[in-house]
Amino acid sequence: MSPVDIIKKKRDGHVLDPDEIGWFVRGVTSGAIPDYQASALLMAIVVRGMNAEETAALTDAMVRSGIRADLSDIPGPKVDKHSTGGVGDKTSLILAPLAAACGAVVPMMSGRGLGHTGGTLDKLESIPGFRVGLAFDEFKAALKDVGCVLIGQTSEIAPADKKLYALRDVTGTVESLPLITASIMSKKIAEGIDGLVLDVTTGRGAFIKTEEDARTLAKGMVGIGQRCGVRTEAILTSMDAPRGRAVGNGLEVIECVETLKGRGPADLEQLSVLLAARLLVLAGISQSSQDAERRARAALTSGAGLEKLRHIIARQGGDAAIVDDYRRLPSAPNRRVIEATRDGVVARLDAELVGRASMTLGAGRERVEDSIDHAVGVLVEVRLGNRVNRGQPLVEAHYRSPDRLDRALALLADAVVIADDAPAPRPQVLETIGFG
Amino acid sequence: MSPVDIIKKKRDGHVLDPDEIGWFVRGVTSGAIPDYQASALLMAIVVRGMNAEETAALTDAMVRSGIRADLSDIPGPKVDKHSTGGVGDKTSLILAPLAAACGAVVPMMSGRGLGHTGGTLDKLESIPGFRVGLAFDEFKAALKDVGCVLIGQTSEIAPADKKLYALRDVTGTVESLPLITASIMSKKIAEGIDGLVLDVTTGRGAFIKTEEDARTLAKGMVGIGQRCGVRTEAILTSMDAPRGRAVGNGLEVIECVETLKGRGPADLEQLSVLLAARLLVLAGISQSSQDAERRARAALTSGAGLEKLRHIIARQGGDAAIVDDYRRLPSAPNRRVIEATRDGVVARLDAELVGRASMTLGAGRERVEDSIDHAVGVLVEVRLGNRVNRGQPLVEAHYRSPDRLDRALALLADAVVIADDAPAPRPQVLETIGFG
Repeated sequence: MSPVDIIKKKRDGHVLDPDEIGWFVRGVTSGAIPDYQASALLMAIVVRGMNAEETAALTDAMVRSGIRADLSDIPGPKVDKHSTGGVGDKTSLILAPLAAACGAVVPMMSGRGLGHTGGTLDKLESIPGFRVGLAFDEFKAALKDVGCVLIGQTSEIAPADKKLYALRDVTGTVESLPLITASIMSKKIAEGIDGLVLDVTTGRGAFIKTEEDARTLAKGMVGIGQRCGVRTEAILTSMDAPRGRAVGNGLEVIECVETLKGRGPADLEQLSVLLAARLLVLAGISQSSQDAERRARAALTSGAGLEKLRHIIARQGGDAAIVDDYRRLPSAPNRRVIEATRDGVVARLDAELVGRASMTLGAGRERVEDSIDHAVGVLVEVRLGNRVNRGQPLVEAHYRSPDRLDRALALLADAVVIADDAPAPRPQVLETIGFG
Repeated sequence: MSPVDIIKKKRDGHVLDPDEIGWFVRGVTSGAIPDYQASALLMAIVVRGMNAEETAALTDAMVRSGIRADLSDIPGPKVDKHSTGGVGDKTSLILAPLAAACGAVVPMMSGRGLGHTGGTLDKLESIPGFRVGLAFDEFKAALKDVGCVLIGQTSEIAPADKKLYALRDVTGTVESLPLITASIMSKKIAEGIDGLVLDVTTGRGAFIKTEEDARTLAKGMVGIGQRCGVRTEAILTSMDAPRGRAVGNGLEVIECVETLKGRGPADLEQLSVLLAARLLVLAGISQSSQDAERRARAALTSGAGLEKLRHIIARQGGDAAIVDDYRRLPSAPNRRVIEATRDGVVARLDAELVGRASMTLGAGRERVEDSIDHAVGVLVEVRLGNRVNRGQPLVEAHYRSPDRLDRALALLADAVVIADDAPAPRPQVLETIGFG
């Protein structure tokens, strides 16, 4: 086989054989196929697409580029949740402890922020001492002890995805349903789980802008999960406005702890409990949605979820006292409140612009090599559809540098629109795409 | 501007601005834009295409990546010929001396073999001592002295093309009319010529398989030449069977010398004289095709063309005595004749397969780093449509290694098909696409 022949085949719109896909992925993993050939094939895939069989073969090849973790020596059903990305989307830090508190085993491997969206690993690293980079043995030991770990992809898991993902980010080849599907599913399948809930976001703050594309993506991922023996379901959710109030790493950690204390924003609590409940159903711990939601909510109300988070933080080297004392988290030296300039209704609260404002303040990376300021971010004081009065606070920027503040304020001014009237916002949960 | 935004724009089928194209090409030239981003854009261009304005902007950006040579201190009209590639296509070594012998100035910069096709530089390097790598000053001095130089692209000429061309070869992005157009025309425009004849090949042995694509390519190139002040015309030629008898570097040099001695194959002589004549018309030396052909043929008959070739070889450090003594050229130690296994008509004489057989013997490169064996190749003893008898020689392989011979024989067995009857072959010259 030759890389150029495979590239040309896809370039010309033909279907690649599983053998060709496997051979190419092995070449990328070993370094035998250079980046410039990989990016040419990626672009051909973005433009020409891949059918379900090709996408499954790509996922499989990426799983096989590393190990498929064997967690059979840890008792209990292993389940995980993955989100396709959003702004203020911090459900992982809430639902993982809740599900673990109810008896599920949650070996969660997450990613970093991408573009205007936040990443679970960046949020966790706001916690002093918290280690997201566990070796595979450490990961298994912690999972056995605590029932939940929150880490980054270990080097054994889908190394081909790690390489291709980095390349896609800098070659305009992120926006492709088959590539997104294979990237997400290969990591999750390799993780060694039995059940998976996908939070497929759609809207202004998501990478998938339309419900139709989100549905196609969700169906494809559910199909591949099933094919690989992972019970998979997808929840389509709206990502028009930020989730919860907080956007920015340390601020989001505080909001997660508050939610586990029963004091979180309603939308965030509701979705976190729902997703935790779906994990309990997939894990076979609950036989019905009602029972699962009751258990998940009980873990929240009783403080069992909060205790589990404390345990996770301590086991991964972090300062668990942050749960009781937020002053132990990084905090920005300056605040700036933006107020409503008129009476009216919040007609727009643009998640992408809020996310970009937070990134501009330093909460995200503009370049791969940028470091993250865990203290800065944005607090959103209103919800879509809220009635507000002139002078009422809309958002509060937590900032370090006045230069960055100025750029962020420009974005925030566009992000929130007050109008005389506004249509009702979409519900948070749009649709459930189940297995079987 | 950001490379990723430009890549995405073309990926999504939009038209790039001249500024964006220029910025990207400058980045590729300086190395600021890495190969993996360049190949992603190249693939997007191959699949999405470029309109005439984009192609012109790309050509212009590639010209501006280096110098546009100023040859005004050399008296006389400067003209050149370029072929889009073929098998046994050796007209350059005949027509350039013929046109120069008639008073045209021919600053010919050529390329190396690509895939199954031969390259003028590789052929010239069969001549002991011949230097194709002149510096720009040496090039001008030799052109002033002799009226013709046969060299490779100097480093000053379209360096962006040099980089992109090497990348296209290994990323499946060769077959694109706008990329082919910009690559050819940028080099030729930068060379400093006043007139250009394009030999646009089409058929089994060419890169452009259909007449329709060849015509589109030819029209596009003629348009860009005109726009840049170079009088340009294109001749569409068939490339079904090899041109002339010889395929392989040293063997082709001998055939060129034989042709300049009036003993060459009819098809090769005819096309070389025609192309030389078109150069004389574009140079303003002849006012009519008839007069131009008469002059070109006279240069052949009188031996003036041969004398000019001798002069070119000597001026570029080569052993001009090869013209009189072919034993001074590299020669393969072994020969193998393939004979007709039945009576009939030559129904196929596949240029691509003959080219691949010659490449397999060592006359071309399978990998960029391969070195070339100037002695080996294939002599074709029959023409398409010839009647042959069983046992009659069809092709003769000149080879060094028996291993390579075996692989070449398999290709040659497919290359020549004898049938009871066969349609008349296409004419060599299919169409002329003129300027104005």
